[in-house]
Amino acid sequence: MESRPVRIGIIGAGFVGSALAELLSDSSRAQALADAATAPVELVGVAVRDASRTRPGVPSDLVTDDFDELLSRDLDVLVEVVGGIEPAKGFIERALRAKVSVVTANKALLAAHGYELSQLANENSVDLFYEAAVAGGIPILRALRSSLAGEQILRVMGIVNGTTNFILSKMSNEGLDYADVLAQAQALGFAEADPTADVEGFDPAAKIAILSSLAFGTKLEGDEIAREGISGIRSVDVEFARRSGYVIKLLGIAERIGDSGLSRRVHPTLVPKEHPLASVNGAMNAVFVDGAKSGPLMWLGQGAGGEPTATAVLGDVLDAARNRVSDRHDIPFTYDNRLHLVDEGELRSAFYISIDVDDEPGVLAAVANIFAEQGVSILSMEQSGEGAEARMSFVTHEARTESVRATIHALSDLPKVERVGACLRVLAGGL
Amino acid sequence: MESRPVRIGIIGAGFVGSALAELLSDSSRAQALADAATAPVELVGVAVRDASRTRPGVPSDLVTDDFDELLSRDLDVLVEVVGGIEPAKGFIERALRAKVSVVTANKALLAAHGYELSQLANENSVDLFYEAAVAGGIPILRALRSSLAGEQILRVMGIVNGTTNFILSKMSNEGLDYADVLAQAQALGFAEADPTADVEGFDPAAKIAILSSLAFGTKLEGDEIAREGISGIRSVDVEFARRSGYVIKLLGIAERIGDSGLSRRVHPTLVPKEHPLASVNGAMNAVFVDGAKSGPLMWLGQGAGGEPTATAVLGDVLDAARNRVSDRHDIPFTYDNRLHLVDEGELRSAFYISIDVDDEPGVLAAVANIFAEQGVSILSMEQSGEGAEARMSFVTHEARTESVRATIHALSDLPKVERVGACLRVLAGGL
Repeated sequence: MESRPVRIGIIGAGFVGSALAELLSDSSRAQALADAATAPVELVGVAVRDASRTRPGVPSDLVTDDFDELLSRDLDVLVEVVGGIEPAKGFIERALRAKVSVVTANKALLAAHGYELSQLANENSVDLFYEAAVAGGIPILRALRSSLAGEQILRVMGIVNGTTNFILSKMSNEGLDYADVLAQAQALGFAEADPTADVEGFDPAAKIAILSSLAFGTKLEGDEIAREGISGIRSVDVEFARRSGYVIKLLGIAERIGDSGLSRRVHPTLVPKEHPLASVNGAMNAVFVDGAKSGPLMWLGQGAGGEPTATAVLGDVLDAARNRVSDRHDIPFTYDNRLHLVDEGELRSAFYISIDVDDEPGVLAAVANIFAEQGVSILSMEQSGEGAEARMSFVTHEARTESVRATIHALSDLPKVERVGACLRVLAGGL
Repeated sequence: MESRPVRIGIIGAGFVGSALAELLSDSSRAQALADAATAPVELVGVAVRDASRTRPGVPSDLVTDDFDELLSRDLDVLVEVVGGIEPAKGFIERALRAKVSVVTANKALLAAHGYELSQLANENSVDLFYEAAVAGGIPILRALRSSLAGEQILRVMGIVNGTTNFILSKMSNEGLDYADVLAQAQALGFAEADPTADVEGFDPAAKIAILSSLAFGTKLEGDEIAREGISGIRSVDVEFARRSGYVIKLLGIAERIGDSGLSRRVHPTLVPKEHPLASVNGAMNAVFVDGAKSGPLMWLGQGAGGEPTATAVLGDVLDAARNRVSDRHDIPFTYDNRLHLVDEGELRSAFYISIDVDDEPGVLAAVANIFAEQGVSILSMEQSGEGAEARMSFVTHEARTESVRATIHALSDLPKVERVGACLRVLAGGL
């Protein structure tokens, strides 16, 4: 069987685009790619802003600075690795309307406009795939779309931001403070000069929006995700967690609540040391899925980096190519929105609360009284430090989030309390 | 679009067959299954040996004891969960020849006849899928077939036998002896009355044969896998490993050696505590994949059990159903056999060696001399026990397996050595 080659174009030649161009141009892999795609695969062009710059791995005769000219090269699949909302969105829309399948790694765009883009792909009978948008090289989206398509998912939970996991791991392993580790991460290129998107949880929130849409059929467009970052975490919190058998991880969570509820949130969490997510260190990512029948499943891998991400993009390219060869496309996931968003204040969880207090008698009585007034029951308490450094650390029994917030509020008003340091959820034990 | 339903038959109604029948008959899931399959999915029959027995979850009006009668019900997909070589092989062949796609969880059959059955499926333009044959509910095969199809795999390594992992975890956590834990596992139903297939590594070897065929394009038929079991492991070995920062796991490994070599083997291994495989406990399974570009990836989940396995089977059923609806089938993986099997004796590894010795002066000198003669360099040595219990435990630097075997052989001949206890490989550190 001799098939017409499947023609691939790339827009964007950063780390991922260059690594992908190199994979697609590697003649020693051509046969393996053709086997997987059921037809030869040919890179026919790479569109960039400045065509005069040379890029390692990118054949210079394929480079153009004119997107329309690239689109006119009779493409089967366009790979978008430009990032950001515009002009990426415009490029993708024009490609889909031209009946070109699109593979993208653009989580921000998908979290904001994924639903409308999926519809547009379907109307034009082409594919829109985006495996690399969540957890880099980990093939979690295809597993949700395909292997677990018949499963009732109860919870999807993950470490899906490498920067914050790097920072938290380093704080935990080396006892360093947040600001120092952030500065190191910035120097090493693991954190941006403006780290807000990572450390305040915007990036993992976009990924949870995408995971939630596939796992729970929620509409992928401007999804609201409750969000807390890691910038308020101190080394004393990390140390307390360690002594108590936990590690602090920034988790993204989407979970079914009761029959028809759904909660989606990103927050730092005390994870029990025995939990598989606890040992996911450095820039690694992991996604944990609880299925009604499958039980717990976890995927672990590189969350970022040009080559791992390019591998995930390549998996999508081959999928789209196979579909082109057999003249079909995947039906986009149905967004039935059967579940309603549960108010986060209603959720129950155990909490770790750390407060800086005046070092004088009677403080514990005053503080304990406030917990009691809000109906928040204390599991354990530890006093540490002296003088200006005096602290109390509490772990509560499971309590309503709203009640814990009211407790925090009342504690802040207490004259003997200098400030409330951390208020972090504790993940329930076991798998 | 109103499609003709996809008609599913099951042969075998044990734990997996019953759980699958229940999933397929659950009306609350019918819409989700139809969405995933792109057509309604209908269970039309379950063939069993004794049709008079009632089985929970299996609608009794669908039960038959006549396989030919089941096949005559105009099936699209047959699920084989009988197990064993015959009569399962005959059933599958008849279904494929009748142009019915087949989903099976039968690892023994696939390891022995997978190649010829895949060919038969392809000749008849239908699918043969077998996700559940390896690592139960973990969707690793589809990831290798699809997401990683364009990737050069360097190593596939896993804990793919729940029984032995349960035994080793319990020995490690509770300091118990092998025989005691095996007896407990048998009492709990986690181990068979004749545990040979598990504890001597036959079951994980069949799974490594299947993983190797997908990861490295080796022909899946009567594959030779070097195999060592866990029955010789003593609590003193587990304890030594723990003190030294390792846990003992029965690993199945298929790895590329140099440009064109391949090694496939199953053996107990000292795994560094920091390695993600080290924390895979009890009956959990995990598969670790090293890709040239993707970097390390790991999948974790339930390795056995009716419901997790049924989930994996269901994923295959939906895949096969989608293909039926769009009138196509997957091209079976190409078995190009480009890699040659490397003689295991040539592989290099660090080893842990434990010997029972006479408690008298001069033993160490005699033993060390033998290591030196074979060119095996010692990293660390520990003497423990007294009198009849005296032992020496060695960890070697990386050495040729053949040289270590010669060392063991010579040590056994030494009058002062009572017996050689364990000789286990040590997994190199890092990811």
